[in-house]
Amino acid sequence: MKKTYDAIVIGGGINGCSIAYQLAKRGRSVAVIEKGRLADKASGAAAGMLGAQTELTDDGPLFEFARKSRAMFPELARELEELTGVHIGLQNRGMYRVAATEKEAIELKKLIEFQTKSGETAKWVSFQELMEQEPHVSSSLIGAMFIPNDGQVDARELTIAFAKAAMLNGAEFYEFTNVNDLILGNEKAHGIQTDLGPMYAESIVIATGAWSPFLIEKTGLTLPISPVKGECLSVLTNKPLIKGTVFSHGCYIVPKKSGRLIIGATVKPDTFDERVTVDGISSLMEKAKRLVPGIGESELERAWSGIRPLSKDGLPFLGEHPSCRNLYIAAGHFRNGILLSPATGELIADLMDGKSKDSGPFRLSRINSSVSA
Amino acid sequence: MKKTYDAIVIGGGINGCSIAYQLAKRGRSVAVIEKGRLADKASGAAAGMLGAQTELTDDGPLFEFARKSRAMFPELARELEELTGVHIGLQNRGMYRVAATEKEAIELKKLIEFQTKSGETAKWVSFQELMEQEPHVSSSLIGAMFIPNDGQVDARELTIAFAKAAMLNGAEFYEFTNVNDLILGNEKAHGIQTDLGPMYAESIVIATGAWSPFLIEKTGLTLPISPVKGECLSVLTNKPLIKGTVFSHGCYIVPKKSGRLIIGATVKPDTFDERVTVDGISSLMEKAKRLVPGIGESELERAWSGIRPLSKDGLPFLGEHPSCRNLYIAAGHFRNGILLSPATGELIADLMDGKSKDSGPFRLSRINSSVSA
Amino acid sequence: MKKTYDAIVIGGGINGCSIAYQLAKRGRSVAVIEKGRLADKASGAAAGMLGAQTELTDDGPLFEFARKSRAMFPELARELEELTGVHIGLQNRGMYRVAATEKEAIELKKLIEFQTKSGETAKWVSFQELMEQEPHVSSSLIGAMFIPNDGQVDARELTIAFAKAAMLNGAEFYEFTNVNDLILGNEKAHGIQTDLGPMYAESIVIATGAWSPFLIEKTGLTLPISPVKGECLSVLTNKPLIKGTVFSHGCYIVPKKSGRLIIGATVKPDTFDERVTVDGISSLMEKAKRLVPGIGESELERAWSGIRPLSKDGLPFLGEHPSCRNLYIAAGHFRNGILLSPATGELIADLMDGKSKDSGPFRLSRINSSVSA
Amino acid sequence: MKKTYDAIVIGGGINGCSIAYQLAKRGRSVAVIEKGRLADKASGAAAGMLGAQTELTDDGPLFEFARKSRAMFPELARELEELTGVHIGLQNRGMYRVAATEKEAIELKKLIEFQTKSGETAKWVSFQELMEQEPHVSSSLIGAMFIPNDGQVDARELTIAFAKAAMLNGAEFYEFTNVNDLILGNEKAHGIQTDLGPMYAESIVIATGAWSPFLIEKTGLTLPISPVKGECLSVLTNKPLIKGTVFSHGCYIVPKKSGRLIIGATVKPDTFDERVTVDGISSLMEKAKRLVPGIGESELERAWSGIRPLSKDGLPFLGEHPSCRNLYIAAGHFRNGILLSPATGELIADLMDGKSKDSGPFRLSRINSSVSA
Repeated sequence: MKKTYDAIVIGGGINGCSIAYQLAKRGRSVAVIEKGRLADKASGAAAGMLGAQTELTDDGPLFEFARKSRAMFPELARELEELTGVHIGLQNRGMYRVAATEKEAIELKKLIEFQTKSGETAKWVSFQELMEQEPHVSSSLIGAMFIPNDGQVDARELTIAFAKAAMLNGAEFYEFTNVNDLILGNEKAHGIQTDLGPMYAESIVIATGAWSPFLIEKTGLTLPISPVKGECLSVLTNKPLIKGTVFSHGCYIVPKKSGRLIIGATVKPDTFDERVTVDGISSLMEKAKRLVPGIGESELERAWSGIRPLSKDGLPFLGEHPSCRNLYIAAGHFRNGILLSPATGELIADLMDGKSKDSGPFRLSRINSSVSA
Repeated sequence: MKKTYDAIVIGGGINGCSIAYQLAKRGRSVAVIEKGRLADKASGAAAGMLGAQTELTDDGPLFEFARKSRAMFPELARELEELTGVHIGLQNRGMYRVAATEKEAIELKKLIEFQTKSGETAKWVSFQELMEQEPHVSSSLIGAMFIPNDGQVDARELTIAFAKAAMLNGAEFYEFTNVNDLILGNEKAHGIQTDLGPMYAESIVIATGAWSPFLIEKTGLTLPISPVKGECLSVLTNKPLIKGTVFSHGCYIVPKKSGRLIIGATVKPDTFDERVTVDGISSLMEKAKRLVPGIGESELERAWSGIRPLSKDGLPFLGEHPSCRNLYIAAGHFRNGILLSPATGELIADLMDGKSKDSGPFRLSRINSSVSA
Repeated sequence: MKKTYDAIVIGGGINGCSIAYQLAKRGRSVAVIEKGRLADKASGAAAGMLGAQTELTDDGPLFEFARKSRAMFPELARELEELTGVHIGLQNRGMYRVAATEKEAIELKKLIEFQTKSGETAKWVSFQELMEQEPHVSSSLIGAMFIPNDGQVDARELTIAFAKAAMLNGAEFYEFTNVNDLILGNEKAHGIQTDLGPMYAESIVIATGAWSPFLIEKTGLTLPISPVKGECLSVLTNKPLIKGTVFSHGCYIVPKKSGRLIIGATVKPDTFDERVTVDGISSLMEKAKRLVPGIGESELERAWSGIRPLSKDGLPFLGEHPSCRNLYIAAGHFRNGILLSPATGELIADLMDGKSKDSGPFRLSRINSSVSA
Repeated sequence: MKKTYDAIVIGGGINGCSIAYQLAKRGRSVAVIEKGRLADKASGAAAGMLGAQTELTDDGPLFEFARKSRAMFPELARELEELTGVHIGLQNRGMYRVAATEKEAIELKKLIEFQTKSGETAKWVSFQELMEQEPHVSSSLIGAMFIPNDGQVDARELTIAFAKAAMLNGAEFYEFTNVNDLILGNEKAHGIQTDLGPMYAESIVIATGAWSPFLIEKTGLTLPISPVKGECLSVLTNKPLIKGTVFSHGCYIVPKKSGRLIIGATVKPDTFDERVTVDGISSLMEKAKRLVPGIGESELERAWSGIRPLSKDGLPFLGEHPSCRNLYIAAGHFRNGILLSPATGELIADLMDGKSKDSGPFRLSRINSSVSA
């Protein structure tokens, strides 16, 4: 085992792997340290929606960042497939954010107006128009906001593709390896203590999602990120129930290959407990049946969960530690980790390169001002 | 492969294996032919309740037969464990058949009266008494019929124990073997055609549950048995939610080892489709939460189904074919296959031995009179 | 349930689904009857190699048919993805048929010569050239025949894609449905008896792989097809061990997405027993480690098996029953079911349409002459 | 969540749960903190052999402790089953430690002599005698040491039974909860920092197996325990291949219920990587086939691994921290965690109670003398 790298990335989830890929591509020697398997936690649990317009509904900096990241996918998919042979499952059959009440319809129409002004495509489809496209949705719906550009990927495949692409550019991956401590000194990070012994690097990135606060705590900084469990299930059906993703308050249904539909996701704050509960799954089943009644007859395949990292102000933390040089953080992506991974990888690499000076609204120095725990 | 046996049993489920054990124990050479694995269909899907008093609520011949069979379990458990080392999980922590309405309470009290007259133990427990024993049941219940003698076993283990005990007495088992046809002649069964070639026997027993009608059809007899799918799920909890089995209209909850609870079962008539549906599982979850609210927080483990054989008059078919000698049938046990297996094995063996002359209410000659399809 | 169709296809494996797709696309009303799930048997177990040149080494009619079928894949992949959204995983990173001895090298060189004459591309690569392309293969190898055009697909996805494409053209699929008998009369097939009742059609196709002889037996014809079990395993590795498929006598290693390698396959004749044995898996592991030593450190994922239909003369049976009109058979594809499925679907549809008059070397009338059992 | 306990046990494996049970039974308020699920690591991976005489072959203190612990099982099994309803699968069909060479035979005969002097039962069985008892073992064996008193349990069930028994005595269990730090002060442990916040106790026990050194490191003590991966597989067979456990150098085969045999275990030092490798499983398969050739035909069920804690001198660490009062350690049981769990639970509880003054050879003060890392 080599002991010294240009960069060490802690965390083999979607963002750790994207960062490792960007760094390795730019010629840096990189090690990725993962306590279990790659894509084993939230990244492997994600449904893979690229919901820049569906999920991010106000005019904040995250909307901007999300649109930028979403735009990177087509080129990225080609690049990764060429390099690694992995097909990341990028698909774009559109997303329907449905309205069940007049109030929801009014809100969605406002959102369409705002997004249209921002230069994005979004349009209102009446119930009749919706039924023409998606004849199996519930007849109790009023209409939907249709977002043609919010596609989806296979989240696990994308993570693996990033990792393999990084490896092919020389990155080394250590799975089943614990990071027990940071090696700090002189207001600078020098390396990490692992079960395999110490490892040193010019730059260290913490990208361990909901688990990020623990290691960072050792620097004296309390990172205001909390764990939020999301439970999902998948069902199988040979009937073409939906073509696009159907998204409502509290439930989404994402069509995947081979007649698989992913139904998600519950929101259970402040827990690392990964167990999938009867309450969680039965509530998702009820909601999904209300959206697409034919789901009742589909086959239950399996259920799982992921622990998502929610930051106090809803924005991820991306950038250098405020008081410890060479230590970078990329965490707090909540439900948008897959969508934001291309832009996150690029931004962290740009910050290290000096191509970006600052991560603006995502910088860590906002802690202890507006977002302190 | 030997070609000639005293008896061939078609079907490696609970009743086929029980019959094989009885025959082998009595010195007969026996072959069991199973198209897949042993205990792979309804027998492996069963929750293992021995609900003689819980399930069989009228004073018919099945109640009698069920009580007799239930009484055989303690000795059988010892015998099988001694012979095979398999612990069949016989347990008796009692069963509660609960009442949610006054009407149900009145019916259960009548049932208690009837069963008491029949010499069985059953008593009414008030809501207060119920809560003392099972403090986690719903506070909306009125009370319950408590049946101390309706225990449970591990249905799969029992099937395997019968099979191993049969093997130790010389029986041969052919798994993954199809029976393509019966070899008939002169109003008599002589053998079977299998993928492994023909096999011959003095006696042939068809014990293939819901699939029994297909092979029997070749004798010109339409066996009035239909397939009824039952879906189940299991949940895990470290909380001691229930000690005894809780049974209501449409849902039962059976405590198993290691904090596992089995929740069953839906009743979907006329289908061989084994897929577990969203509708089925969500309805069971709702019912179980209404009985024991704490189940909502328990962990979903898995879901499965079994196809149970329902006869037209509700009684199993046990005995010789009405017009084809040496051909026996043991099928149609519906939800009571596990409970009835000891008595079924003994009865079929007794009929072959001439120890019993007739299977009375279970005889096949009742077809084409009251129960014809 | 509709009762009358233009065509009924029995068997929801790769060839049944391909035939159904061709027929539905040509405007016929089609029903597919499958006793379990689609792609549940040999089709779901296949590694998906399109080994027209790798597997078919003599100049027989099958080589011709296989080349034709292989050539259909690129267009088919586009067509199916456009229609159904399913990505069938068509890949072409070439296949290496390796030589471990001089004798094998000589044979492969002869084969290259023959194939080159047939107009196909195949070339000898020395050990040095092999190591440049595939640096992780064993240093004990001598060289390899490189076949750039033998690609691969995801066999299960292709089956599902055929099925969904058929459905979108109006075909109906009945899973978990048994066909209990053929309805014959006047030297013609009229329909089938199923658990759901009788169904009638102008044409009936039997495409039930190794199970095909059973139903056909009822017509008095003994179809000389026997079941051959093939066991496989998959391993996971993050190291890029091989890029192309490596194929040797008795073992192949197929790289799949996400670092999965499929290692196959044993050849166990005359059995329907699907159990994966210790002997089978340990022998595959040993062979794979001899080909690519680094496989020893990879992670065992899972093992499975499929029952492949081997015809007596090695050629599939494709065409109309010799003495029973309207009854078609498409079975006996042995290890080449995935590769041959596009051409099989087209041929059966052409025969029904009268576009082909005869299936030549694959016709059923050859039974009872050279190939009788 | 309560914040203050008499005792906190870190680690929900077999020894943590045994300790919690002993403490709770003695009236202490106890919390168990487990980062994942109970019995999820080495305890759930164990084959459950109680090999006091089979595994511990020299006359050290561990042999004494192991014999004492083994003797506690019959009473413990009764106690736990009565309390919790969990059947821990205690079985005693004896163990055969086989000899394949004359040299091994001589060593085993010496061991028999020594153990007999120690008052234990062990006898030499010749090849003929062995074949009478175990007719399926390899004919290449010379004989075996037969140990009638080394039985087995179901390791996972025993862990769960300890936990449930502790709960029924008031203990609280926190699964999926990380312990991030110890709260130390004044040469004393006061509590722990968890994701759920701080928790305080009079006594804190670290029972986290191979992961124990990490938390203890914070006290300045380097615990000389290293992780050793052990891979296992299970096979299924309906043939009664072996009745007792067969144990040889490098491989053991343990018969479990329902025809399951567990084959273990590899020994891979210095790794936390839980992945099951092709090398590991193929070597176990080869060894098992050499011991019991019929295993070759049995069905591969699954493979898994556990990370076992090996201490530098081979003895577990049991007792109070040498320089930090109230902090107890129970770790380093290597392959004997299941066997030693009853005595471990009792010893730790006795030390806390003052019933034992010292854990003698297992005390922690031996670190930095003979066993320092």
